[in-house]
Amino acid sequence: MTTVPAPGEAFLAETRDQPRALLRLLEQEALYDEVARAAVERKPEIVRLVAHGSSDNAASYGVYAFGIEAGWTALRDSISLTVYYGARLELERSVVVALSQSGRTQDVVAYVERARERGALTIAVTNEPESELARKAELTLPLAAGPENAVAATKTYMNQLAALRLLAGAIAGRTGEAVDEIGRTAESMAEAFPRFEDAVSSVAGAFAYVGRMFVVGRGIEFATAREIALKLTETCRVAAEPLTSTDLAHGPVAALDPLFPVWTIASNDEALPTIVDAARRARAAGATLVASGNAQAQIEGAAYRLPVPEAPSTLLSPLLSVVPGQLFAGALASAKGLDSDHPEGLTKVTLAQ
Amino acid sequence: MTTVPAPGEAFLAETRDQPRALLRLLEQEALYDEVARAAVERKPEIVRLVAHGSSDNAASYGVYAFGIEAGWTALRDSISLTVYYGARLELERSVVVALSQSGRTQDVVAYVERARERGALTIAVTNEPESELARKAELTLPLAAGPENAVAATKTYMNQLAALRLLAGAIAGRTGEAVDEIGRTAESMAEAFPRFEDAVSSVAGAFAYVGRMFVVGRGIEFATAREIALKLTETCRVAAEPLTSTDLAHGPVAALDPLFPVWTIASNDEALPTIVDAARRARAAGATLVASGNAQAQIEGAAYRLPVPEAPSTLLSPLLSVVPGQLFAGALASAKGLDSDHPEGLTKVTLAQ
Repeated sequence: MTTVPAPGEAFLAETRDQPRALLRLLEQEALYDEVARAAVERKPEIVRLVAHGSSDNAASYGVYAFGIEAGWTALRDSISLTVYYGARLELERSVVVALSQSGRTQDVVAYVERARERGALTIAVTNEPESELARKAELTLPLAAGPENAVAATKTYMNQLAALRLLAGAIAGRTGEAVDEIGRTAESMAEAFPRFEDAVSSVAGAFAYVGRMFVVGRGIEFATAREIALKLTETCRVAAEPLTSTDLAHGPVAALDPLFPVWTIASNDEALPTIVDAARRARAAGATLVASGNAQAQIEGAAYRLPVPEAPSTLLSPLLSVVPGQLFAGALASAKGLDSDHPEGLTKVTLAQ
Repeated sequence: MTTVPAPGEAFLAETRDQPRALLRLLEQEALYDEVARAAVERKPEIVRLVAHGSSDNAASYGVYAFGIEAGWTALRDSISLTVYYGARLELERSVVVALSQSGRTQDVVAYVERARERGALTIAVTNEPESELARKAELTLPLAAGPENAVAATKTYMNQLAALRLLAGAIAGRTGEAVDEIGRTAESMAEAFPRFEDAVSSVAGAFAYVGRMFVVGRGIEFATAREIALKLTETCRVAAEPLTSTDLAHGPVAALDPLFPVWTIASNDEALPTIVDAARRARAAGATLVASGNAQAQIEGAAYRLPVPEAPSTLLSPLLSVVPGQLFAGALASAKGLDSDHPEGLTKVTLAQ
């Protein structure tokens, strides 16, 4: 007898599996060290991150992981510049980090082929170490997240963050510290899960008729804003747009009204004052505020609060901050009668051009 | 006797002034050549573009202008990484291009100060050559757009695109070609203006009750998607999110329905097939399509069409593609009784952190 899974069951199970997924990644420590050595030998000018969708959200985090931990400039490179427009950029002193959960994202694979031909050191970061992307790249780093069946990514995104943090730490010669900190983050996450689920279940229902939302984060936490916005958009059909706190003030604040909620990610780091300021502007425009992150208490006038524990370092906050957003998306989809495992019009591997 | 301007009057007048604004920029040709020589002498590894709001949209275009025209890697750099997190990036072989229409964007100024201290060549591109930003940067390039009074930028954005194209052309040793092409683009724009206004006025009214929209472009035209989305958001209170064609397929397509319009920018360049594909997916999900750009005829099933003339080269298409979006935003604001000169909660100079 086979059991038919309930709608959203895989998405919830995979969200809950994240603390264990992080520990599986840490078992790959030696491999990350080896790839880091190869990257350091190359003396790169820049790290070019290439990805789409939630992998590209993780790439936003990579800019900060490489910048803060290793002092290296990383950018989310334009894929179209190389793949479609054929720009002749100098790539010999570049390290390319290509992120694809399935390893089958077409133009990421095409980018890696060209970059490798032109002398870049190419590294695939993927949950499928036998995939086309892994075969085309010179080096491969497995995500080791375990099988992911829901179309909307959760634990592969989580392990991409950790993979980038671990690689940046290994490059800086501090692998042990990275492993220790990621391990402790996984512990905090596991311990906090029941509280996350309780907090979210009492909030999500209120958003059943929300059509649009802004999700505001900055710096290290901008990846979290992008990922929560994407989860809400793909699983709940909410038009949720990620904005930095400064972007919000440069125009979009004019669109706000009391029916337009703003989700703020407030973490205790150097960019926090910009988030507090953005939240104040949004509240003044009448928006309903959701405050999440380990510094949510600093957001004044929030109607809903989703706290998370402090991470062992500010660079690891995004691993914890994203979880209430994932759970919220799952709960809201369920309240709206949508199946977060199979959003309308999406497949697990996106074969779009 | 003073005349009180009608709501939206400045925004419309400044939109219409754009062909002349472009010609004013071209009078600065010698200065652009001089700054280009200084940049080339530096033998930079990368160009770091820093900006917020519509200036940051222009920076998206800069990535393609420098990449295609000069073969240089340009990135929209993280301001927070340097200004808030104090990352110690190597900047000696960087050229910084700081874009601020007012020259008073606080953290762009702070970024330029730090980058200059660390040895980067800093270039301010601004409409206010006496501004704080111009004083802090080593070199200044004026936008020469003329006074801009509406809060929502139009001609300063236009001249930022042209400034980046001109600088990239001068770096590549092809200043004359750049000047010629921008001049011809200004002519086409002036000639097409009456048609643009007619086309837009018959369409905008239908969008009076639209609350959310996606604006889809890719590559060279992603800047246009970002800028049109920002105009709609700030002047019309529509939650318009810019997406690349591939972003759309990686999740957001699941949120579409017949009440959720998608604006596509279809220009005749190498990324066009990805836009045609994205439009097909959006239409299949029931979305109402607006097709704009010089290749709008290739978008199947569009309910509304806003054509523009071919530009002298694909790299100049964005100068023409953005105009119907600006006019549409002005007309829609007017249809909704909003004042596009003074959007709610915004000021001309954003002093947000």
